[in-house]
Amino acid sequence: MNSLKNAWYVAALADDVALTPIKQVIAGNPVVLYRADSGKAIALDDRCPHRFAPLHMGRVQGDSIECPYHGLQFNGQGVCSLNPHGDGRIPAAAKVRSYPLVEKDGLLWIWLGEPALADEAGVIDLAQFFDTEKHTLVAGYFKLNAHFEVVLDNLMDLSHAPFLHRATLANREDVDKLRFEMQVDGDVVVANYSFNGVRPSPQFQPFWASSSSLADGRANMRWTPPSSLQLDVGYTECGGLVDEGVYLHMAHLLTPASESETHYFWVAARNFCIGDEKVSQIMREQIQRAFQTEDEPMIEAVAGYMDSVDLLALKPVLLPGDAAAIRVRRVLQKLREQESASNKSKAA
Amino acid sequence: MNSLKNAWYVAALADDVALTPIKQVIAGNPVVLYRADSGKAIALDDRCPHRFAPLHMGRVQGDSIECPYHGLQFNGQGVCSLNPHGDGRIPAAAKVRSYPLVEKDGLLWIWLGEPALADEAGVIDLAQFFDTEKHTLVAGYFKLNAHFEVVLDNLMDLSHAPFLHRATLANREDVDKLRFEMQVDGDVVVANYSFNGVRPSPQFQPFWASSSSLADGRANMRWTPPSSLQLDVGYTECGGLVDEGVYLHMAHLLTPASESETHYFWVAARNFCIGDEKVSQIMREQIQRAFQTEDEPMIEAVAGYMDSVDLLALKPVLLPGDAAAIRVRRVLQKLREQESASNKSKAA
Amino acid sequence: MNSLKNAWYVAALADDVALTPIKQVIAGNPVVLYRADSGKAIALDDRCPHRFAPLHMGRVQGDSIECPYHGLQFNGQGVCSLNPHGDGRIPAAAKVRSYPLVEKDGLLWIWLGEPALADEAGVIDLAQFFDTEKHTLVAGYFKLNAHFEVVLDNLMDLSHAPFLHRATLANREDVDKLRFEMQVDGDVVVANYSFNGVRPSPQFQPFWASSSSLADGRANMRWTPPSSLQLDVGYTECGGLVDEGVYLHMAHLLTPASESETHYFWVAARNFCIGDEKVSQIMREQIQRAFQTEDEPMIEAVAGYMDSVDLLALKPVLLPGDAAAIRVRRVLQKLREQESASNKSKAA
Repeated sequence: MNSLKNAWYVAALADDVALTPIKQVIAGNPVVLYRADSGKAIALDDRCPHRFAPLHMGRVQGDSIECPYHGLQFNGQGVCSLNPHGDGRIPAAAKVRSYPLVEKDGLLWIWLGEPALADEAGVIDLAQFFDTEKHTLVAGYFKLNAHFEVVLDNLMDLSHAPFLHRATLANREDVDKLRFEMQVDGDVVVANYSFNGVRPSPQFQPFWASSSSLADGRANMRWTPPSSLQLDVGYTECGGLVDEGVYLHMAHLLTPASESETHYFWVAARNFCIGDEKVSQIMREQIQRAFQTEDEPMIEAVAGYMDSVDLLALKPVLLPGDAAAIRVRRVLQKLREQESASNKSKAA
Repeated sequence: MNSLKNAWYVAALADDVALTPIKQVIAGNPVVLYRADSGKAIALDDRCPHRFAPLHMGRVQGDSIECPYHGLQFNGQGVCSLNPHGDGRIPAAAKVRSYPLVEKDGLLWIWLGEPALADEAGVIDLAQFFDTEKHTLVAGYFKLNAHFEVVLDNLMDLSHAPFLHRATLANREDVDKLRFEMQVDGDVVVANYSFNGVRPSPQFQPFWASSSSLADGRANMRWTPPSSLQLDVGYTECGGLVDEGVYLHMAHLLTPASESETHYFWVAARNFCIGDEKVSQIMREQIQRAFQTEDEPMIEAVAGYMDSVDLLALKPVLLPGDAAAIRVRRVLQKLREQESASNKSKAA
Repeated sequence: MNSLKNAWYVAALADDVALTPIKQVIAGNPVVLYRADSGKAIALDDRCPHRFAPLHMGRVQGDSIECPYHGLQFNGQGVCSLNPHGDGRIPAAAKVRSYPLVEKDGLLWIWLGEPALADEAGVIDLAQFFDTEKHTLVAGYFKLNAHFEVVLDNLMDLSHAPFLHRATLANREDVDKLRFEMQVDGDVVVANYSFNGVRPSPQFQPFWASSSSLADGRANMRWTPPSSLQLDVGYTECGGLVDEGVYLHMAHLLTPASESETHYFWVAARNFCIGDEKVSQIMREQIQRAFQTEDEPMIEAVAGYMDSVDLLALKPVLLPGDAAAIRVRRVLQKLREQESASNKSKAA
């Protein structure tokens, strides 16, 4: 599919990969993820090269995974390490593709492009943003029936919140106080939203302890290519500083599954009710509800109404608030063209 | 899709459109239908021109509908009447297509072609046929997984009744007494069926009050392009007149949804048990049963077995009873060719 | 679809065809199967040539089947034998294709190719293999979402048993004792598996009455084109003869339904617990369990991972145990080419 190959994408939440293998389709590639006895997470092509059986239906044996059909074993490098039949000879071609995989900040990051270019330093650093010393984290996963750029459109334009999320993440009347500012830093795009002198949203209301009913709100979104988004959303006393009040540091991490499906991983680090599992459960439910009853139906309906994955080719009527989302699409387009040119010059 | 554009089709039963917007796909076009505060029914393209959100998920605000994603409002003419963001400027291109819509005889009729050609006088007049002074009406809706011309085939050839509807609308033995006559009046096609000296069908039997067990039956079908059918079906004493006895005046109104789906609206006006809601309920159940257990499975199976929507290209074995259905297909073909020629001469 | 036409395929278990017609899609052809009053089984094209109604929704009338839509009747030769309408004239073209059909050994065999070439002597003879004097039979049917050659691959390579069927038809440790030998006899391919000095498999364990816990096992598979497989599977005392001990004579009879679906008929004749209906029920459940929880998910997953129905075009890594399955694919390829050449020379 038309997505950047030489880039790190989240393949799974680290906690979701254990000894029992799982299948994940990533940018059209069926991948088996499992953890070797050593604890190391491994990503291989899910198709056995013998009879095309799905390896994720097999069992982990030490560092290797055993094919469920005829028992061939493949190690963490994708090389066949055991043929249990006859004289046990292993054909030289008995290999599956092995994907570079990095475990960091509770996430497993996969590299779809040339293995030689897979630089671990390129994995975005979220440690400071999550800051497990100061925050309590919850995480989750959604699957969306939409191209991942339509999901990016949604996340990079939060002016939809007072309408789509009027019952959850925002108040309808906030639209009048909403201020939007875009910042561009190389290929990174930042969309900052502020709404001062408002009631905290239904999401934050239960945790707003101030005697003042009004607050200054913000929702600052930072996109790093190809599809890592960091959102700092919260409320302070009017005129307060961003470290005060209540806030969430949310990571929204998108991975294309296919032209019409997106993996959506999220982590939310809060600075309030630290360590309170009941509040963690409330946060999970709030986020699930907003996603499943508001964002998901809308994003899937929009994807269904777009006859092309290229938004701009559809000549949408654009508003000033679309600037950040459009910038993101243009940066991705530029990076895809660079990757394509680089592949061509190597081939020449 | 390959259907007449410059024609009136039923978009909905008038009672089914209220303040809560509904979506209806008509000849491949997603349309939102809603009633303004004034009571006027409105039909717009369901796709917001900003981000392609489905307007039918939004709310009616006065004469306008509010987009559920970012809150743009569009009035009854499809013109953006409010942008709630920033300085509120409305881009000139912020418009959706508005469809001519006529409310008449409890039906909402939509025009899919050139608005300038939409003459309300062209909407078929069913007032006299329904005659609410003399009759009690019931109405309903079905959705069919078949091209609408396959549904037309079914309705224009009622010789199927003694076989397909042997337990409901007809008696198996009636086939021997069936007489069929076609009349052609310009583009209108009439198929008259009579079966004299028969027992009333299971549908009419409970309402047949005569001392004679035998009756003269009729089922006279009148098709007006593109897809309005009027059926006068009933029984009289042998040798009686059509105004006597028991009868239904049924309108069968077909609207293409897509190449493989049809909206089927129906109204049945009866001259017996006037005002009796229990009998109205029996009529609804009879019609639903005959449709859902007999016509629908057959029409969908036939559509599944036809490799083309062009029946004649499949070289069917034709019987004399097919004359009316074939005539209808030929008239539609002629009208499509005229419309296409007219469009070309305008373009030239 | 790309399958041999001039060949006999099982259309149904004989017991499954009675007065109520059934539909079976065979190599893409919708076929209606019914039994005439005389008891003779009949196979006709399921599409009425008048309005393309499905004949299998109709009723048997003597030797004929009545179309459910307009009541035309077609006899066992596919010729219209009654038109109940008007003057009853029967158009000369009112015919449906009639397929040669042979009832033998509890199976109905259909011929898809030229009727003139349909030689009943070509139906494989299973009477001696089933031998109802000495054996008790159970039979059944599965539908698979896979091309029939992928199912053939599975059946012609039983080295998968110790892995895929480790809980049912085989023991995991048997892989070390497995010996495989292929025999080729013209177009017939035989794959013989032996595993001596092993515990009987979970399937046979309950019926293994010997004082010795170890046995000699075998699974000998014989394929006759296009898709009839005979499996002799069982256990004897170590060093015993194949007529001793416990065994099943199983027929696996595959019929292509479409490019991606296969009919799978099976019969199992056992030489133990003769006439015991409780044991027959256990055999059915064992076979269903192994099929539905082990073979079916694997075959369908493999078919989903093969981008082509031509296995060899996918360049699989082959093992010595694949010899018989590959041979079968090559014989089928040769027979298809012969059939195609023969058709061309007739056309020339």
